[in-house]
Amino acid sequence: MTSAEMSASVQLADRALWAKGGAISYLMQQGIENPQCLSLAAGFVDASTLPVDLVRNATDRLLAENIRGRAFLQYGTTGGAERARRAVLEHFATQEGKAVADLGVDLSRVILTNGSQQFLSLVAQVLLNPGDICLVAAPTYFVFLGTIAGVGAKAITVETDTNGMRPDALDAKLDELDAVGLGDRVKLIYLVSNFENPSGYVLAAERRERIVEIAKRRSTSHRIHVLEDSAYRELRYEGDDPPSVWGCDPDGEHVIYTQTFSKSFSPGLRVGFGIAPTELVAPIASRKGNEDFGSAHLNQHIIASVLADGSYYEHVNEVCESYRRKRDAMVAAAREYFSDIDGVSWVEPRGGLYVWMTLPEHFDTSFDSRLFEIATQKELVMYVPGELCYGGEPAERPRNHMRLSYGVLSPDEITEGIRRLANAIRSL
Amino acid sequence: MTSAEMSASVQLADRALWAKGGAISYLMQQGIENPQCLSLAAGFVDASTLPVDLVRNATDRLLAENIRGRAFLQYGTTGGAERARRAVLEHFATQEGKAVADLGVDLSRVILTNGSQQFLSLVAQVLLNPGDICLVAAPTYFVFLGTIAGVGAKAITVETDTNGMRPDALDAKLDELDAVGLGDRVKLIYLVSNFENPSGYVLAAERRERIVEIAKRRSTSHRIHVLEDSAYRELRYEGDDPPSVWGCDPDGEHVIYTQTFSKSFSPGLRVGFGIAPTELVAPIASRKGNEDFGSAHLNQHIIASVLADGSYYEHVNEVCESYRRKRDAMVAAAREYFSDIDGVSWVEPRGGLYVWMTLPEHFDTSFDSRLFEIATQKELVMYVPGELCYGGEPAERPRNHMRLSYGVLSPDEITEGIRRLANAIRSL
Repeated sequence: MTSAEMSASVQLADRALWAKGGAISYLMQQGIENPQCLSLAAGFVDASTLPVDLVRNATDRLLAENIRGRAFLQYGTTGGAERARRAVLEHFATQEGKAVADLGVDLSRVILTNGSQQFLSLVAQVLLNPGDICLVAAPTYFVFLGTIAGVGAKAITVETDTNGMRPDALDAKLDELDAVGLGDRVKLIYLVSNFENPSGYVLAAERRERIVEIAKRRSTSHRIHVLEDSAYRELRYEGDDPPSVWGCDPDGEHVIYTQTFSKSFSPGLRVGFGIAPTELVAPIASRKGNEDFGSAHLNQHIIASVLADGSYYEHVNEVCESYRRKRDAMVAAAREYFSDIDGVSWVEPRGGLYVWMTLPEHFDTSFDSRLFEIATQKELVMYVPGELCYGGEPAERPRNHMRLSYGVLSPDEITEGIRRLANAIRSL
Repeated sequence: MTSAEMSASVQLADRALWAKGGAISYLMQQGIENPQCLSLAAGFVDASTLPVDLVRNATDRLLAENIRGRAFLQYGTTGGAERARRAVLEHFATQEGKAVADLGVDLSRVILTNGSQQFLSLVAQVLLNPGDICLVAAPTYFVFLGTIAGVGAKAITVETDTNGMRPDALDAKLDELDAVGLGDRVKLIYLVSNFENPSGYVLAAERRERIVEIAKRRSTSHRIHVLEDSAYRELRYEGDDPPSVWGCDPDGEHVIYTQTFSKSFSPGLRVGFGIAPTELVAPIASRKGNEDFGSAHLNQHIIASVLADGSYYEHVNEVCESYRRKRDAMVAAAREYFSDIDGVSWVEPRGGLYVWMTLPEHFDTSFDSRLFEIATQKELVMYVPGELCYGGEPAERPRNHMRLSYGVLSPDEITEGIRRLANAIRSL
């Protein structure tokens, strides 16, 4: 055997070349490996809110009796345990302000996944061919942008303001795509409806109706689905929960809904769920059958238990109390340290985990920028470069934004992190 | 809006059309929904072996202290928690009969997944383009056949005997594919090295060496990887563990290894692992980043805990004791009820969970056969049609085999199941 043969090169599939999972993995790794850096980057949840006692007690109860306990350590089904799906559907109904019977959702349409991320990924795989288009807000959840790229599809941005994606701009973008012969490639409209990651925007109620109406009206050659990602729905610190986008589609044919227990309860359990239109249930289940044929069964039952006994809801109230204080700390610190820096502005969110900050246009916040270097190496503070949160061509993405999370740090650390960040910016 | 617009048809991605996750989901569902049917079909593990006390105790210890416990309920990293990867690598080294230091495996090459199935799926996605070829034994693990089809690739069978895939047949198949211009499409050789699901075959030690040598020698235009699925390695009831296929590739460049804790411990925790060649680590992690950015963190630490305190190994011994008795019951029942049916033969496995049974060629065991109907509807016993376990064109797949699992039933139920199955066959 010659050495040339020994080292025959690895030939990756197209999909591996498209994958852009790097940003989230890089950030998560950074967050864990650099405890000395104050992380305004990690989308991790507040450690002090993690429900250690609730999970231990739920597990103890589930596994108290040998015979009954075994069932939870066995395989479940691909779409999730019936008891857990039922509990999740009741939870969803509660949020919708309806009785389960009035939702018109068969239990088979509820699919439990490894966090909502796996559900998002399954939807992308089931609906998007290479070259297909998913319309997204600007900015939007950067991990899903990676997922879209990872199946070879394109994320195209729609003009967005503080009330979320603009319906008129959506219609105009669809016209524009039609005009260049790409209208047929639009398969999906992705909306983070509440406290969008990273912007904190809530999609206005009236826009929810209009976007669903547009998706239906423009579904001429094929159905255009709307994917509502409501990951932050329960992390609301003031005001009322508007009706979901899903609720604007009474037939349940156009809107796909997903939500997670990672932010409100525990990401370490990795339980999320989706509610799929009937025609997508089998394709999503088949794809999940190929990938892992079911998420961790025990973890589904832990979630079902805390939903059933109500301890979940008490916990969510505590979590919201804690995040409200931290949101307040970040907003106060931003006012204190950034008010005198010309041209800096930020969104003061009513929920979620993020403050979206805009610097003057000549600033560059990207990974390879001077600012990122000074922030992480000298000031020891980390943020998520806003550039990551935009679809479209790299050259067209604004580079003067930052996503600042108040998730992991204490109020004092948040204040200090913002102070450091202001220092880094001032030094330029 | 017209009703035509309302019902614009759903347009699925190619990948959704390729997905064949249905068989496993269908079978799992059947197993759960038809408790009155004795299931010789389910690959579920024996409920009586499930480690209720061990998991409860491990969870209690992990979550005993509030501060320490929080870490396990937080996000982990995409590839898995460092402590858990280290424990898994030590576990792997133990099986290889080596010290960790002598394995030459950097911890980053150990990737924790939702069972080994997710690792198999990630490898398929990272290496196989639509139209690419994965060479497989005949028969082989049917869920992975679905995964291959799900990425649009082709599973092509290589002649197999009771010692596993034949190296001479592998070489001949590669020649045959070269001759028709398809040699360049071969990216992967898939081997279930120990107690293959469904056949129970162990790949002979000398063949392991030869197959790795062939993969290296034929890696001319690109690297041909060997994917070793060792899911049943620890379920050995007699004899010695042969060196792994992975061990036949000292450079670690050609063989990808995967194993699971689902069969030996608990499928409900959904923890498996893979050891990837260095050049595949980043692509696999990126793809996992797109799909779920990490498996359940708590569950990884439960596995790490039972590996560390040795309770895992005691448990595996008990599991093997239990399965040995059940294997014996199935083999004895087969001898009792099938010996007088002409032309029926079966493999008596030394490990794993399955007996592979062959009926005379004129019998048809498929889902839509008269036999399957009589078995499930009249005799109330279920098996997996052998047809599912073959790659290649549907018309060419043998239809006269059955996979019989002794996983879930008690010895008495196994005996009764085999009796019912013999009745069903005799009635034809």
